[in-house]
Amino acid sequence: MKLCRFGPRGAEKPGMIDADGALRDLSGVVSDITPAEVTPEGLARLKAIDPATLPLVEGDFRYGVPVAGIGKFLAIGLNYADHAKEAGLEPPAEPIFFTKAISCLTGPNDPVMIPQGAEKTDWEVELGIVIGKTCRYVSQEDALDHVAGYVLVNDVSERAFQKELGSQWDKGKGCDTFGPTGPWLVTSDDVPDCQALDMFLDLNGKRMQTGNTATMIFPVAECIAYMSRFLTLHPGDLLITGTPPGVGEGQKPDKIFLKPGDQMHLGVTGLGEQRQTVVAFSLDGAE
Amino acid sequence: MKLCRFGPRGAEKPGMIDADGALRDLSGVVSDITPAEVTPEGLARLKAIDPATLPLVEGDFRYGVPVAGIGKFLAIGLNYADHAKEAGLEPPAEPIFFTKAISCLTGPNDPVMIPQGAEKTDWEVELGIVIGKTCRYVSQEDALDHVAGYVLVNDVSERAFQKELGSQWDKGKGCDTFGPTGPWLVTSDDVPDCQALDMFLDLNGKRMQTGNTATMIFPVAECIAYMSRFLTLHPGDLLITGTPPGVGEGQKPDKIFLKPGDQMHLGVTGLGEQRQTVVAFSLDGAE
Repeated sequence: MKLCRFGPRGAEKPGMIDADGALRDLSGVVSDITPAEVTPEGLARLKAIDPATLPLVEGDFRYGVPVAGIGKFLAIGLNYADHAKEAGLEPPAEPIFFTKAISCLTGPNDPVMIPQGAEKTDWEVELGIVIGKTCRYVSQEDALDHVAGYVLVNDVSERAFQKELGSQWDKGKGCDTFGPTGPWLVTSDDVPDCQALDMFLDLNGKRMQTGNTATMIFPVAECIAYMSRFLTLHPGDLLITGTPPGVGEGQKPDKIFLKPGDQMHLGVTGLGEQRQTVVAFSLDGAE
Repeated sequence: MKLCRFGPRGAEKPGMIDADGALRDLSGVVSDITPAEVTPEGLARLKAIDPATLPLVEGDFRYGVPVAGIGKFLAIGLNYADHAKEAGLEPPAEPIFFTKAISCLTGPNDPVMIPQGAEKTDWEVELGIVIGKTCRYVSQEDALDHVAGYVLVNDVSERAFQKELGSQWDKGKGCDTFGPTGPWLVTSDDVPDCQALDMFLDLNGKRMQTGNTATMIFPVAECIAYMSRFLTLHPGDLLITGTPPGVGEGQKPDKIFLKPGDQMHLGVTGLGEQRQTVVAFSLDGAE
């Protein structure tokens, strides 16, 4: 099942994708896709619906973040063996995690804004996981049973803010529009193996990132189990799991960073695609 | 004005403290204290109420976190000149910030749980700020106009998780129950100078931390202005501003860390006090 939210920012309606890939309006069934809808009970209720019975949405529409009310937006750093090699860094001994501010969440095709004074804004295609059941000291074996589904995320990052203004990365990870998420939450039953998904990111039509979740240093189940030793994960929490090689700061001979007018296009097998235009910061562009 | 939330965890009601320090039930006026209630409009509506007209709450009650629906819980590190000296560290050139998980928020007098396997759990009395108006590239001069009010926070931290498991601090900052907050949100008009507040923390009856917000390296207005260059602060966001000397890892000749049965008692002038019993982790104790 593919769930989504569509419509103008701040006024999104819940939706479901039908067998033909068309959007159906779920707002007659639930008022929104919130953490309650991504629990096993919430998902079971939605799975019982035949999408063909829902109103078809025709014409153009905007996708929003597929889950409203995300509580925590946590990220694993340096989690691809080939990306660590590209960065010239030893693979970490255990997962690194940091936090993205929930205010950076934005629709999958919304513009990405370069913050004022920023010169090193970069891209990172990632596999995102939405938690469906509370996780606390969960075992690796049981971890995936706590996943509601998967989602495509661009972990946009400003490298100078992240790494040159002190030791903590959060300054460069949570800027407004730095978390394009969606188009869909694809439920776990439709993702038979989350460690076998191809991923890509193109910048202005040129392939920059190519990867597969098979090269994760710490697989999804291990990331969840590990995180749950430090804090409780709740339904609606979003966890992103690292990026494969090809980020801007990894380019040779010269690093490449985003500038206004650039076009990003990214995707993960089965989770859909995103297209973002890079723009200069404007007050109107922030939520 | 002092606002609060009271009652069992997950079923708190909104409250207001009257001129005699007694608790009045606000639930006939608003259903909860949410980000909407801490905006200038929301606060103006509540200020127009004479607390004496509200039902008096008698008997024992539990205080909850005074604002529901906190979106971001951001923290400034190493922000007291005397604490930096104690830690043997150079004062930072610009504010350090990191994130506490919102799932660590807990009532001011709820037990604090030591995570499984943790041996270096520590205390930090801090001045908390609740944002009332959206802040984005705000100037220092205008920053305090965006504050709804102030709140007492214990920034409980597990030092091994924070510092010995990689570079990022979030593992040791967001554990369940690591964010006791309250008892009250004291609105800005009742805090004439947020840079002149005494603060203390006692462990088992012995004074450990003594400080005053006057020794902040980066005053509150500068912290807000600085953060707002990196991300947008929204009504209901909680920002904590660093701790004065006397944390457990700063004790000489031997560091002192929390163990089950310990009692913490802390306060900031005008913001009330907190008392927490330290307990071993239990699944029931986590929200």
